[in-house]
Amino acid sequence: MVPAGDNRPRYVCTQCATIHYQNPKMVLGTLPVWEDDGELKVLLCKRAIEPRYGYWTLPAGFMENNETTEAAALRETVEEAGANVELGKLFALMNVQHVHQVHMFYLATLRDLDFAPGEESLDVRMFTESEIPWEELAFPTIRATLELFFADRARMREGDAGYGFHTQDITRPMRGPEAS
Amino acid sequence: MVPAGDNRPRYVCTQCATIHYQNPKMVLGTLPVWEDDGELKVLLCKRAIEPRYGYWTLPAGFMENNETTEAAALRETVEEAGANVELGKLFALMNVQHVHQVHMFYLATLRDLDFAPGEESLDVRMFTESEIPWEELAFPTIRATLELFFADRARMREGDAGYGFHTQDITRPMRGPEAS
Repeated sequence: MVPAGDNRPRYVCTQCATIHYQNPKMVLGTLPVWEDDGELKVLLCKRAIEPRYGYWTLPAGFMENNETTEAAALRETVEEAGANVELGKLFALMNVQHVHQVHMFYLATLRDLDFAPGEESLDVRMFTESEIPWEELAFPTIRATLELFFADRARMREGDAGYGFHTQDITRPMRGPEAS
Repeated sequence: MVPAGDNRPRYVCTQCATIHYQNPKMVLGTLPVWEDDGELKVLLCKRAIEPRYGYWTLPAGFMENNETTEAAALRETVEEAGANVELGKLFALMNVQHVHQVHMFYLATLRDLDFAPGEESLDVRMFTESEIPWEELAFPTIRATLELFFADRARMREGDAGYGFHTQDITRPMRGPEAS
């Protein structure tokens, strides 16, 4: 039904009349890097849960009430990768309209390499740019974020100032309807 | 109750066992400007609804499912101010943790001055920096966004490149518990 003064249908409890608004959810994550002797590696997690079981992702998950975007990104990085990171700037904001989500990724620097897969990960590993399993990434926002990151790095090698902030709309799944 | 495999309590329907996750909501808006003969003015709306009835705000409201952050910002600008704007870059992202919200504001340029208050506004007006009713602003995220905007303008007058992207945590209400 459409509540009074509103302009679209809402879920309304038939017993207590509470209106359950359905709004897009935020997915917060990090792009954790480790630089050693000029070589940069990115941390990825192999998913132990559906959707996209067995595919690689940046650590990310749903933001909860009572936390900030930064706190959510940090929490997911600990939960999924057991990683100890220092958070950097917000790097990417991606609209994933068809699944009612907005994905955001913060830059992050690993403080050490003592990471370990959490309950939702089968494996956690470091990848150089050429080692990234591009064909086995879980979601289009992961691919887009990694592409934007390495594009910024390439520009920085040519003298550009630093990492930018990027926004993008993702309008279709990676492959197959199960991958949003 | 805490669902299996989860780590925090959720609202679970006692009849059908549906889990109603409670996640932070996004509030999307714009900072619409009009520049004439070197003089810049910002559009503000006087709220016709609670909370903060009668106080001034940038056009903004809850993002709905099936729209992007840009589309939500544009929709709210039309609904509250009847304004015809061209959207610019995402300018500010503010965590308002204590009310479970994230507020985002896009820069926007008015295409004309044919705006008019919508149902949720008592009035819509243009303000130069010195005319902004700082003591009658509705929410701290509005004040912070306007302050960041004019600070960027001041830096630009001294040769800085352009508007930045800003993130900030808002940890307390403007004044009194009704203003979040």
